[in-house]
Amino acid sequence: MIASMFYYNPKDWILAIFRITKSETIMTLAPTLIFISLYSWGIVYLEVYYLKLSENSYAKDITIMHSLLGFAISMLLVFRTNTAYDRWWEGRKLWGSLVNNSRNLAIKLKVFLPAEDQGSRTFFRQVIPLYASALHKHLQKESTKLQLDEKPHPELPDFDNNPHVPNKVAESMIFKINDLYKNKIISGDQLIVLNDEMRSFTEICGACERIKNTPIPFSYSAFIKKFIFIYAVTLPFGLALSLGYFTIPVTAFIFYVLASLELIAEEIEDPFGTDINDLPMEKIADNIKRNVKDILT
Amino acid sequence: MIASMFYYNPKDWILAIFRITKSETIMTLAPTLIFISLYSWGIVYLEVYYLKLSENSYAKDITIMHSLLGFAISMLLVFRTNTAYDRWWEGRKLWGSLVNNSRNLAIKLKVFLPAEDQGSRTFFRQVIPLYASALHKHLQKESTKLQLDEKPHPELPDFDNNPHVPNKVAESMIFKINDLYKNKIISGDQLIVLNDEMRSFTEICGACERIKNTPIPFSYSAFIKKFIFIYAVTLPFGLALSLGYFTIPVTAFIFYVLASLELIAEEIEDPFGTDINDLPMEKIADNIKRNVKDILT
Amino acid sequence: MIASMFYYNPKDWILAIFRITKSETIMTLAPTLIFISLYSWGIVYLEVYYLKLSENSYAKDITIMHSLLGFAISMLLVFRTNTAYDRWWEGRKLWGSLVNNSRNLAIKLKVFLPAEDQGSRTFFRQVIPLYASALHKHLQKESTKLQLDEKPHPELPDFDNNPHVPNKVAESMIFKINDLYKNKIISGDQLIVLNDEMRSFTEICGACERIKNTPIPFSYSAFIKKFIFIYAVTLPFGLALSLGYFTIPVTAFIFYVLASLELIAEEIEDPFGTDINDLPMEKIADNIKRNVKDILT
Amino acid sequence: MIASMFYYNPKDWILAIFRITKSETIMTLAPTLIFISLYSWGIVYLEVYYLKLSENSYAKDITIMHSLLGFAISMLLVFRTNTAYDRWWEGRKLWGSLVNNSRNLAIKLKVFLPAEDQGSRTFFRQVIPLYASALHKHLQKESTKLQLDEKPHPELPDFDNNPHVPNKVAESMIFKINDLYKNKIISGDQLIVLNDEMRSFTEICGACERIKNTPIPFSYSAFIKKFIFIYAVTLPFGLALSLGYFTIPVTAFIFYVLASLELIAEEIEDPFGTDINDLPMEKIADNIKRNVKDILT
Amino acid sequence: MIASMFYYNPKDWILAIFRITKSETIMTLAPTLIFISLYSWGIVYLEVYYLKLSENSYAKDITIMHSLLGFAISMLLVFRTNTAYDRWWEGRKLWGSLVNNSRNLAIKLKVFLPAEDQGSRTFFRQVIPLYASALHKHLQKESTKLQLDEKPHPELPDFDNNPHVPNKVAESMIFKINDLYKNKIISGDQLIVLNDEMRSFTEICGACERIKNTPIPFSYSAFIKKFIFIYAVTLPFGLALSLGYFTIPVTAFIFYVLASLELIAEEIEDPFGTDINDLPMEKIADNIKRNVKDILT
Repeated sequence: MIASMFYYNPKDWILAIFRITKSETIMTLAPTLIFISLYSWGIVYLEVYYLKLSENSYAKDITIMHSLLGFAISMLLVFRTNTAYDRWWEGRKLWGSLVNNSRNLAIKLKVFLPAEDQGSRTFFRQVIPLYASALHKHLQKESTKLQLDEKPHPELPDFDNNPHVPNKVAESMIFKINDLYKNKIISGDQLIVLNDEMRSFTEICGACERIKNTPIPFSYSAFIKKFIFIYAVTLPFGLALSLGYFTIPVTAFIFYVLASLELIAEEIEDPFGTDINDLPMEKIADNIKRNVKDILT
Repeated sequence: MIASMFYYNPKDWILAIFRITKSETIMTLAPTLIFISLYSWGIVYLEVYYLKLSENSYAKDITIMHSLLGFAISMLLVFRTNTAYDRWWEGRKLWGSLVNNSRNLAIKLKVFLPAEDQGSRTFFRQVIPLYASALHKHLQKESTKLQLDEKPHPELPDFDNNPHVPNKVAESMIFKINDLYKNKIISGDQLIVLNDEMRSFTEICGACERIKNTPIPFSYSAFIKKFIFIYAVTLPFGLALSLGYFTIPVTAFIFYVLASLELIAEEIEDPFGTDINDLPMEKIADNIKRNVKDILT
Repeated sequence: MIASMFYYNPKDWILAIFRITKSETIMTLAPTLIFISLYSWGIVYLEVYYLKLSENSYAKDITIMHSLLGFAISMLLVFRTNTAYDRWWEGRKLWGSLVNNSRNLAIKLKVFLPAEDQGSRTFFRQVIPLYASALHKHLQKESTKLQLDEKPHPELPDFDNNPHVPNKVAESMIFKINDLYKNKIISGDQLIVLNDEMRSFTEICGACERIKNTPIPFSYSAFIKKFIFIYAVTLPFGLALSLGYFTIPVTAFIFYVLASLELIAEEIEDPFGTDINDLPMEKIADNIKRNVKDILT
Repeated sequence: MIASMFYYNPKDWILAIFRITKSETIMTLAPTLIFISLYSWGIVYLEVYYLKLSENSYAKDITIMHSLLGFAISMLLVFRTNTAYDRWWEGRKLWGSLVNNSRNLAIKLKVFLPAEDQGSRTFFRQVIPLYASALHKHLQKESTKLQLDEKPHPELPDFDNNPHVPNKVAESMIFKINDLYKNKIISGDQLIVLNDEMRSFTEICGACERIKNTPIPFSYSAFIKKFIFIYAVTLPFGLALSLGYFTIPVTAFIFYVLASLELIAEEIEDPFGTDINDLPMEKIADNIKRNVKDILT
Repeated sequence: MIASMFYYNPKDWILAIFRITKSETIMTLAPTLIFISLYSWGIVYLEVYYLKLSENSYAKDITIMHSLLGFAISMLLVFRTNTAYDRWWEGRKLWGSLVNNSRNLAIKLKVFLPAEDQGSRTFFRQVIPLYASALHKHLQKESTKLQLDEKPHPELPDFDNNPHVPNKVAESMIFKINDLYKNKIISGDQLIVLNDEMRSFTEICGACERIKNTPIPFSYSAFIKKFIFIYAVTLPFGLALSLGYFTIPVTAFIFYVLASLELIAEEIEDPFGTDINDLPMEKIADNIKRNVKDILT
């Protein structure tokens, strides 16, 4: 149900704070949070009740490390958040351009085509929206994601022989337009005027593929996870002597914040999936269909 | 009265500091601030006067958590502020382009059209400004905001059959220009010269729709609100033993700062509404009207 | 004298540190700094000498709040600094484009116009630089700043009937170029080649107007000022018990830093005024004049 | 084996945290980490067991310096991370444009060329993908990296006489297209329509060369390394008295975080090498080949 | 020797850490660092040995101020670093575009010019690279830097009568191309195809001039220097009682870090000088010469 809710009211705080949906990071993190709580409890028990370390034990000051590295980890996560959001927003922009592009092409063709050429009108009424839905399917195929992977993929039988459907659709449009030009139905000036739209389709597709098949460099992704893990795991050592059993919720909450930021970024950075935050490509493709139909009839 | 004040003097500190207007975040937050103050008072009373926790209680050090997470929450809010402002400024730029575009088209047509063709002049004098006001109305319709929502909207009767007015206006302009071209009133070279303006209208509209119907990903929006809530709610536990009753204003002020940043961002990120910070689209549309009238008479 | 110094040596530290000029923020802030010092003295006297609060008083820990909010206020000011600088730099870029555009148009016309057509050359030699100086005057008019203000302005008599001078100048250029095209003095291909420059003038003007008539959203401006004010005013309460009379310079310096950042941002964000940091539009217009004259004779 | 893994699953935490691959920064840093641990042990032994400095020794507060500079170093590393990532992502975009450009050119030529002209088709089917593989080889040559170096390079024999292969390929394409134009196989309007693609090839090549031959300014690179070194080397002096032997892992971990960020940035900022994070140029060139072959047969 | 080293190995840590070259900031800062060390020694002597202030003196807590302002100063320096680097990188991009532009123009002309027209070929083979070297000289002239300065410059005799050499070169190219067009050696379509390159030269020149003659606003530059100065000068007051003689290296190191960031930014923000980090314009101009010669023979 939630998966179908793209537009939400950003001003509804109650919903945001108290409704925990299936897609929430807290659901994914739940097992780890339980583990980290038990682990913290173990450390507190060990330090405070078993070893009976005094308030002046060296262990207490381990928190210095967490505070010196607090800036670094926050900044790294903001870097992560920014790059993930930029990809998501670029994806949204690309699909926005697809809408504009389809509308513009349709309007120009409506105007350029002679009133009696119903055949061409019908052709474009069907083919322009086809591009959007072909792109939608293309971006959700496993083989698109793995396009640049240098390992063989025996599990995907025609990995390399897959025809590139959006390219085929673009080709058929350009072919048709050139045909009209050769038959003098549209003039050379009009051909030039249509060129921007013809180029855009392939460019939008290429840019979407780039976002899809290139996650952020493995080094950053791995380093951030290692950093969060070590940071959280060493936290109770320092906190136990200052906080006693309060160490448990504190460690859990700090881990929840850090890991959530990474988890959300992971989800956002590929905006062409089927998660709740992903772009409603199907809906956009429908809108294009309706718009083009409106214009070209 | 305030809602009509778009241009303010950015150097007037007294006004900014002491005038609390209806639209101020403090008005929206007032009930929550009262609640949070009472809640803080409760925690202080509990810890200091009822349980009589000593200065050395573990509870006192809970503030470590707030200080370790202080960076994270500040950075997240700045990320929020930046993205919201970017949308607002992009919206402003788009309406600025609309002004440029309308002026340029009007100037070119004035020059290209033969002096005797009063009919075409009158046509464009009316239709160019019409685009801006059609876009204005289009952006404030509920159905534009919910365009990408995958839920059905029975409360909006012709949700899907709504004609797209700005498209219709653009279409009529392109139709007219093509007509002039076919009748050899403007040449092929002039058609190419007019192409940029013809494309721009639809592109501006598409970009405004994108800003309108796509808030930032639900995950971030929900996570930030959850984070602020838990941060503020746990604050008095740690502060009570260090600050006594001072805990109340301190907690309230920290909550006010964090929540205000989120609230302002929520308001700014959709610049096409009717709030005080929203773009004066009506005024801009009026200016376009006056400009175009000036040029095309 | 200082107001005429646009190019300064960025490597001169002594000048930067010790010369306090009239335009310096410290001059603007002087009265407030004196007030804040007296106020801090009052608080110190009250807490330390009158109430004789002990070192363990709850008041001492109020500084926790300032340290938790230290990140938030710094980041907000950096956000402010970045957006103000971006506007200033965008303004500079726009005037740089104006230079390029004027030069390019002059060079192309020199080359396209037949050697004997002295009349057209003289026309463009005068009109191209006129655009820059018309834009300069347009941007410094009160009515340009208040263009989008929805309040009536009885103090500016022809607020709405003001002719838009830069538009008139652009119009006359485009008219002349089209005339040359109609008379076959320049060809259709050359018309297309001149199109980019023709569009640019109006676009530069529109972008400058946008920067001029749109300060950052009132909510941010007001919130930042409120935040600085409350932060500075509560500072001595916490510091008095730790710093004694040192509270006075410390509070004053912190206030000086925070308020200066806001003040500089206010000045920078409108780069088309007459302050020391504002763009030397007159000088640039002169350069354009000299350049165009050089080329077109 | 790892070197061939470009696409990884960004959601696989276990892999990211526990698998330490050859390319990991920890392998590069291992010797330094051992040294820094021994060094920390030495300082602790000296201060705590040999000199027996008391808890109140001045040395203990040296940590103040690390905490005051903690912001500065974190921000500098984030600046480093951002610029390195921006280059990497720009490189990825450039190769993405190469894909789009090759596809677009192929599609347009397919449509523009008469069905019987098999010769030209074969020509472009071979030459378009050749550009990508020529660029790939060009970017991995030592002489491309040192192009702007002002020192002589006797170790590279034909440093200055190297023919610029991608330029040659671009030339042959433009030559062929112009030939088709002269022979009226494609019209003037079609020539203009092909112009964007012709320009793009050289521009992509130039931009890749720029990223390759220009590391970030030497001053920043040297300053960041000096800063990390001094920061890490002085750390144990302050920590020893608070942390005892815990100083050793704490210093090592802080150094590991800071140095890793610099190391990853160094690797990322040149995306055209053969490291694990570098762009799979060969794979992309293969895809272009397959795409173009698909289209032009 | 160092001044000729543009390409350095970014992975060489030993060199970066231990080699102190003439151009290093530490050389420039040396006298100030000695002064600041003596000054710190004076303050320590005064507070600790002469006045014998106790550990509980109010002076000790002055460090609170440095820690509250630590964020602000770090962020301001990162803002400074970012803007300086952006200018440097923009400068690099502009010279990269110059390379692309020169290559593209040469390739197109090679192809468009008839094989027998050796005269035109020789002309462009000489004039295209001339633009780069004229721009190089133009950017290093004192009068270019002071172009927008409103003070008179009697020390530069023909400050205002200087001919603008790059403009002259661009003019001669455009003149030649137009000549070829008039004589029907190149067609109108080809003229349009050459237009982008013709525009680019003047635009690159204008953008370089902008970077050269516009340092960041004086207010920011002066404010940052004042802030660093006061921050460093007040530091020993607070540190003396906690650190004793350790105050001296700590103050010196903090000052070194803050001042270095400002110094590097000053050097980087004008990338067209002759410092070690500045762009190797001469080398790039040589490359253009070699490239163009390769293509046009």
